[in-house]
Amino acid sequence: MFVARSEYGNTFSPEGRLFQVEYSLEAIKHGSTAIGIATAEGIILGVEKRVTSTLLEASSVEKIVEIDRHIGCAMSGLQADARSMFEHARVECQSHAFNYNEKLRVDSCTQAICDLALRFGESVDGEASRMSRPFGVALLIAGYDEDGPSLYHAEPSGTFYRYDAKAIGSGSEGAQAELQNEYHKSLTIAEAETLVLKTLKQVMEEKLNAKNVQLASVTKDQGFRIYTDEEMSAVVERLPAN
Amino acid sequence: MFVARSEYGNTFSPEGRLFQVEYSLEAIKHGSTAIGIATAEGIILGVEKRVTSTLLEASSVEKIVEIDRHIGCAMSGLQADARSMFEHARVECQSHAFNYNEKLRVDSCTQAICDLALRFGESVDGEASRMSRPFGVALLIAGYDEDGPSLYHAEPSGTFYRYDAKAIGSGSEGAQAELQNEYHKSLTIAEAETLVLKTLKQVMEEKLNAKNVQLASVTKDQGFRIYTDEEMSAVVERLPAN
Amino acid sequence: MFVARSEYGNTFSPEGRLFQVEYSLEAIKHGSTAIGIATAEGIILGVEKRVTSTLLEASSVEKIVEIDRHIGCAMSGLQADARSMFEHARVECQSHAFNYNEKLRVDSCTQAICDLALRFGESVDGEASRMSRPFGVALLIAGYDEDGPSLYHAEPSGTFYRYDAKAIGSGSEGAQAELQNEYHKSLTIAEAETLVLKTLKQVMEEKLNAKNVQLASVTKDQGFRIYTDEEMSAVVERLPAN
Amino acid sequence: MFVARSEYGNTFSPEGRLFQVEYSLEAIKHGSTAIGIATAEGIILGVEKRVTSTLLEASSVEKIVEIDRHIGCAMSGLQADARSMFEHARVECQSHAFNYNEKLRVDSCTQAICDLALRFGESVDGEASRMSRPFGVALLIAGYDEDGPSLYHAEPSGTFYRYDAKAIGSGSEGAQAELQNEYHKSLTIAEAETLVLKTLKQVMEEKLNAKNVQLASVTKDQGFRIYTDEEMSAVVERLPAN
Amino acid sequence: MFVARSEYGNTFSPEGRLFQVEYSLEAIKHGSTAIGIATAEGIILGVEKRVTSTLLEASSVEKIVEIDRHIGCAMSGLQADARSMFEHARVECQSHAFNYNEKLRVDSCTQAICDLALRFGESVDGEASRMSRPFGVALLIAGYDEDGPSLYHAEPSGTFYRYDAKAIGSGSEGAQAELQNEYHKSLTIAEAETLVLKTLKQVMEEKLNAKNVQLASVTKDQGFRIYTDEEMSAVVERLPAN
Amino acid sequence: MFVARSEYGNTFSPEGRLFQVEYSLEAIKHGSTAIGIATAEGIILGVEKRVTSTLLEASSVEKIVEIDRHIGCAMSGLQADARSMFEHARVECQSHAFNYNEKLRVDSCTQAICDLALRFGESVDGEASRMSRPFGVALLIAGYDEDGPSLYHAEPSGTFYRYDAKAIGSGSEGAQAELQNEYHKSLTIAEAETLVLKTLKQVMEEKLNAKNVQLASVTKDQGFRIYTDEEMSAVVERLPAN
Amino acid sequence: MFVARSEYGNTFSPEGRLFQVEYSLEAIKHGSTAIGIATAEGIILGVEKRVTSTLLEASSVEKIVEIDRHIGCAMSGLQADARSMFEHARVECQSHAFNYNEKLRVDSCTQAICDLALRFGESVDGEASRMSRPFGVALLIAGYDEDGPSLYHAEPSGTFYRYDAKAIGSGSEGAQAELQNEYHKSLTIAEAETLVLKTLKQVMEEKLNAKNVQLASVTKDQGFRIYTDEEMSAVVERLPAN
Repeated sequence: MFVARSEYGNTFSPEGRLFQVEYSLEAIKHGSTAIGIATAEGIILGVEKRVTSTLLEASSVEKIVEIDRHIGCAMSGLQADARSMFEHARVECQSHAFNYNEKLRVDSCTQAICDLALRFGESVDGEASRMSRPFGVALLIAGYDEDGPSLYHAEPSGTFYRYDAKAIGSGSEGAQAELQNEYHKSLTIAEAETLVLKTLKQVMEEKLNAKNVQLASVTKDQGFRIYTDEEMSAVVERLPAN
Repeated sequence: MFVARSEYGNTFSPEGRLFQVEYSLEAIKHGSTAIGIATAEGIILGVEKRVTSTLLEASSVEKIVEIDRHIGCAMSGLQADARSMFEHARVECQSHAFNYNEKLRVDSCTQAICDLALRFGESVDGEASRMSRPFGVALLIAGYDEDGPSLYHAEPSGTFYRYDAKAIGSGSEGAQAELQNEYHKSLTIAEAETLVLKTLKQVMEEKLNAKNVQLASVTKDQGFRIYTDEEMSAVVERLPAN
Repeated sequence: MFVARSEYGNTFSPEGRLFQVEYSLEAIKHGSTAIGIATAEGIILGVEKRVTSTLLEASSVEKIVEIDRHIGCAMSGLQADARSMFEHARVECQSHAFNYNEKLRVDSCTQAICDLALRFGESVDGEASRMSRPFGVALLIAGYDEDGPSLYHAEPSGTFYRYDAKAIGSGSEGAQAELQNEYHKSLTIAEAETLVLKTLKQVMEEKLNAKNVQLASVTKDQGFRIYTDEEMSAVVERLPAN
Repeated sequence: MFVARSEYGNTFSPEGRLFQVEYSLEAIKHGSTAIGIATAEGIILGVEKRVTSTLLEASSVEKIVEIDRHIGCAMSGLQADARSMFEHARVECQSHAFNYNEKLRVDSCTQAICDLALRFGESVDGEASRMSRPFGVALLIAGYDEDGPSLYHAEPSGTFYRYDAKAIGSGSEGAQAELQNEYHKSLTIAEAETLVLKTLKQVMEEKLNAKNVQLASVTKDQGFRIYTDEEMSAVVERLPAN
Repeated sequence: MFVARSEYGNTFSPEGRLFQVEYSLEAIKHGSTAIGIATAEGIILGVEKRVTSTLLEASSVEKIVEIDRHIGCAMSGLQADARSMFEHARVECQSHAFNYNEKLRVDSCTQAICDLALRFGESVDGEASRMSRPFGVALLIAGYDEDGPSLYHAEPSGTFYRYDAKAIGSGSEGAQAELQNEYHKSLTIAEAETLVLKTLKQVMEEKLNAKNVQLASVTKDQGFRIYTDEEMSAVVERLPAN
Repeated sequence: MFVARSEYGNTFSPEGRLFQVEYSLEAIKHGSTAIGIATAEGIILGVEKRVTSTLLEASSVEKIVEIDRHIGCAMSGLQADARSMFEHARVECQSHAFNYNEKLRVDSCTQAICDLALRFGESVDGEASRMSRPFGVALLIAGYDEDGPSLYHAEPSGTFYRYDAKAIGSGSEGAQAELQNEYHKSLTIAEAETLVLKTLKQVMEEKLNAKNVQLASVTKDQGFRIYTDEEMSAVVERLPAN
Repeated sequence: MFVARSEYGNTFSPEGRLFQVEYSLEAIKHGSTAIGIATAEGIILGVEKRVTSTLLEASSVEKIVEIDRHIGCAMSGLQADARSMFEHARVECQSHAFNYNEKLRVDSCTQAICDLALRFGESVDGEASRMSRPFGVALLIAGYDEDGPSLYHAEPSGTFYRYDAKAIGSGSEGAQAELQNEYHKSLTIAEAETLVLKTLKQVMEEKLNAKNVQLASVTKDQGFRIYTDEEMSAVVERLPAN
């Protein structure tokens, strides 16, 4: 079987498809599940950590990171690719804050990330990145700016949309269905925490515990913060037993 | 089967065809439908929004954008590609206004967008864009300049023509036939609003409502503006029942 | 079937042929017909416009353009490619006029266009154009300089010759035969107008009318000018009935 | 059999896999075994040396190197590739110390190495490295900074995690299982030395002796140091007989 | 059938052949015939013009051009390629005259042209030419310098030799045999004129007349000059009837 | 049979192999045999010269060269490739001596050579070398620095190890076995000379004589020196008869 | 049949061969024969000229050229390639003489030519040459410097050796055998002249005469000089009859 070049370059197939972008979505389907939920008070991000060995330091499996004090990001897919995108987003935030003395808006930050994603296969002067393939990463970008809290989902194609609640990664299909059922606009932060973990619990292969999941929040007062071990344990204990 | 290289590079096939450009048209055929109608008072643009989930924030599905105060644009196809073109067009408009202290004409703006489209596969010094494939986007460019209102249709090939009324995207065939029947030169703005939505209604798979379509207008006095939720509801209510 | 690379790059086939150049000629065979006739008083250019819809603004289908006040150009083939060539030719004309305070000669202008055409596949420093394929355009270049009127035909290969009368595009074969029969050196401008339209009428699929064809002339006194709607109607009415 | 390009470039396969990265892991599976163990007092690194001839100077088989006074590194895979990574890491350490007058943190050093690994197939201005394939090397990075001792495992993909104990190379599977059984948080340095060699002994094809293995440690007081021949002999003698 | 890459790149075949260079010779075999004859008084160049239509201005079919006042050139093959070579040669001549205040020697001019021909597939800084294939042109370079008249034949490979009489193009085989028979060192200019046309007459498909052939001469007193229509008619009339 | 690209580029095969590097080793297996032996007093290098014709000047077959006054090098494989490496090494030595006013250490010199070897397929700014394949050369690098004499073996992969005695080239397998048997740490320079020639004698196809082998030494007092014809004859005469 | 890429790029085959280099040797096997002989007084170079037509000016078939006053060169293979090498060598000689006020040594000149040959497929900054294939030329480089006369043979691979007598080109095999028989160190210049022509006579297809061969010499007093027609006739007449 001959494998046509359109599957590997940044070109259209006869049906108008971009195969590399579609294949990168497959890479994300192998990734760990991540969930974001927007409430009136702020956004809750939650991720599954795949701690494959007791000798692996769970805290070094970073699937949620801070972009700026008011923006955080959960990822699913290739860790090293995500690091490039995080770094790019952080520089955009710092650069904007320095030049204009104001926080970068969450949608602008998302767009900056997606512009980077779009440019695979291109050479961009004065920038350290030239990918010959799309990034193998999906992101949930959560922030709180002058317009209140917002949650964005960004894809390898450079497409992004705003969501009330969104799941990505290997368990995303089941998780999204659950979110569709359970989400309502008046969720409190605490209810959102519970809903994130309850949903992860249903789609994770391992049994959920305070070590193999991680929560973070973005709120007006505290900005982005990752939950401490104590906070994690508290939420896990709140989960319904079964 | 061996897939010949001419299907993937910017070269002619033995029949004188440019396959990548033709394939990019296929990508647009998967896109949501967009319609533009020119009247003596101004242009009406209307788009279908594919809001695939109630958790998706409909307002983040941007298919109509402002290029300058007197020019707006509706798109069908790949969102991320369109963003590049919008950004290019905005810079051209700002740059022209700054250098010559006058608004960029609508046809010049259209030509600037099409020149960018034509250059795929080329390296252009001093510019951030080098696509290895055509843009997968069709545009309806609406503006109001010293010559009055005008509506242009731009294709991935870099070809553009002016239209009285034009539909693009997955439902364009049916919609264009409808426009051909219903359009006349003396349409009022209000009649054009109704005609756009009536036509979209016929070609959309989902049932049309005030959330999954969007209208915008370009007029002499108000320039480009996107309709508010209230205005959208008002027009939708005006539609004939069946 | 394996398609050999020589068909897609700028290389010779074993028979000494340049396939991409030959294929670009095929692209032109799909183009609309254009005709040029040289008379002692000046050149007449005429083109078929394919106005595929009544909603399409016929005036936006530009197949004849001004290069300089004394040079005009009719094209057949890919609209966007032609735009690049026109732009190049205009810059050459302006640049020459600015540097030497004289009009660029018609043959020099033609050569400048053909030099650009020849260079596909090359990188040319300090210029915005690097095509990876030949231009898919044939041109009729008409001008009036110190040596009087002249008409040139330029091909994608960069070859150009001067003609008394020449047809290009899909109907060129039939049209050229007609011109061969009807042309004589003592044609007046008015007779040339009639001959252009009569010839177009024979090779066009649509019925010729004042909207779907366009005439332009280059004369000593008036330089290049495109016929107004009134002038078009007058010539069309002059055509023999059948 | 036709071998598809995705196996050789930095592109996704239809299943979302990056073959070159996966194949580089195969190169590491042919490499000599290396082991790292973290204790409260510091990290112990141990490697198998394949001394294939008595004429080969065992000391020139460098599988453990110093990166900075507080960071050391054990490798498995292609020696020459590893040298590039070591050199890069040393420059990062020196540069950080020079600019900020503080030691580079161990996790930052690891990240710098992984950023280099990620960038294969890219051109990076102002840097001497442009690999057309991933590095064929896995690393164990051991350091002691303000947060105490830490041990990282870095892969060709640019992914890295922190471990309490980790084995890489041809014997890594058996060795990791052994470490999983024997490791506990309260190991002393001396116990870790014994555990490293005991584990290597089980997976090495040659009979272990003081010449064909090497130990190194990173502790608060002494930083990184490679064990002398005397020290090696002492540890080997401590090993249980069988 | 798979067509091997060596046929299209600038590489050796297993038999030590350069296919692209050989194929370019095929392109020349389709070209019009050109002949050069050296006499003691000067060189005569003659070419066949293929005037395919009475509407084609025969004078625009330029197959003989002036390089400098003392050097002329006849070509067979691709017109546009030849133009590049002529332009290069003219610049070399002007540049030499400007720098050294003397005429460029004919052999140096020939070598400059051949050096350009050799460099296909190379990028040459500071020069407008980068061909990805050999030039599809053979040249007869005729000049008169301090050593008297000389005639060179240059091939796409960059090889050149000096000849007393030489034919190139589609009829070269028959013409060269004729020249071999008829040429002698003591030919006068007038006899050379007749011999050129007589030979062309034998190999041309069309019937030779004063319009479809062209003569030029390079002599000490007059340098390079193209024959006027009157001169052409005079020579044609001198030809033996049959 | 289709030959996969991994065999020709710098990429991993599915088994984690780098084919071009492996194939370059094959090139070395066709090379002449070279041997190095380290003694306490210095290093002896010896090579086979393939003097295929009595008309060939044996002294122009340079298989042992001086890098610096304290470093010499014996090679096996492609002569022209080796010259590049020697030149690189000499520049490194001179540059180090000039900048730091001390001799480059032998291991640093070896590493500089191997860093060059590793970089095939890369573009290195400011350096004259960009190989699209590995060097087809193996080297024995012999030197005497502050740590006494040392002998290194460097491979096309950029890997290097220190040896007491090492053979490379077509006869390396048999020669290495012989060295393994005969080498001991207390060899004198004279004994090493004899051992080198005795070993070469066993693996050479031609009968060994003072013309078709060459010896060189690196010692503390004399640095690198190539043996004169008289010295060569003396050593050859010392060889045991049979 | 699929032709593997290794035959066309600068890469190793599985057997460690460089096909392009081997194929370039085939190109030389089609070349005319050239012979060099070293005597105590100087070097004699002789070449066969293939004068395929009586109309071809034999003197323009240059197979022996001057590099500097003390160095000459005979070539076999592609004329245009050789010209590049000669030009390179001349510049090296002039540049050395200008910078150091001494003649470039013959071996250094040879090495400069071979370094250029080696670099095919590389881009070399600041130099006009970037070949995508090896040079298709073998050279005999003859010179007379402070060490007396010397004769070098240089191959497309960049390998060079010094010879007492050497033949290259299509008749090289037979000619080399003859030289092996007839050469002795005490040949006079006159004997060498005769031996060169006698040997050429045996391997040439045409009958040898004073026009289709060429001799040149490099001696202490006269440096490089090409034999005049009279000298050629004299040597030819000295040849034994049969």
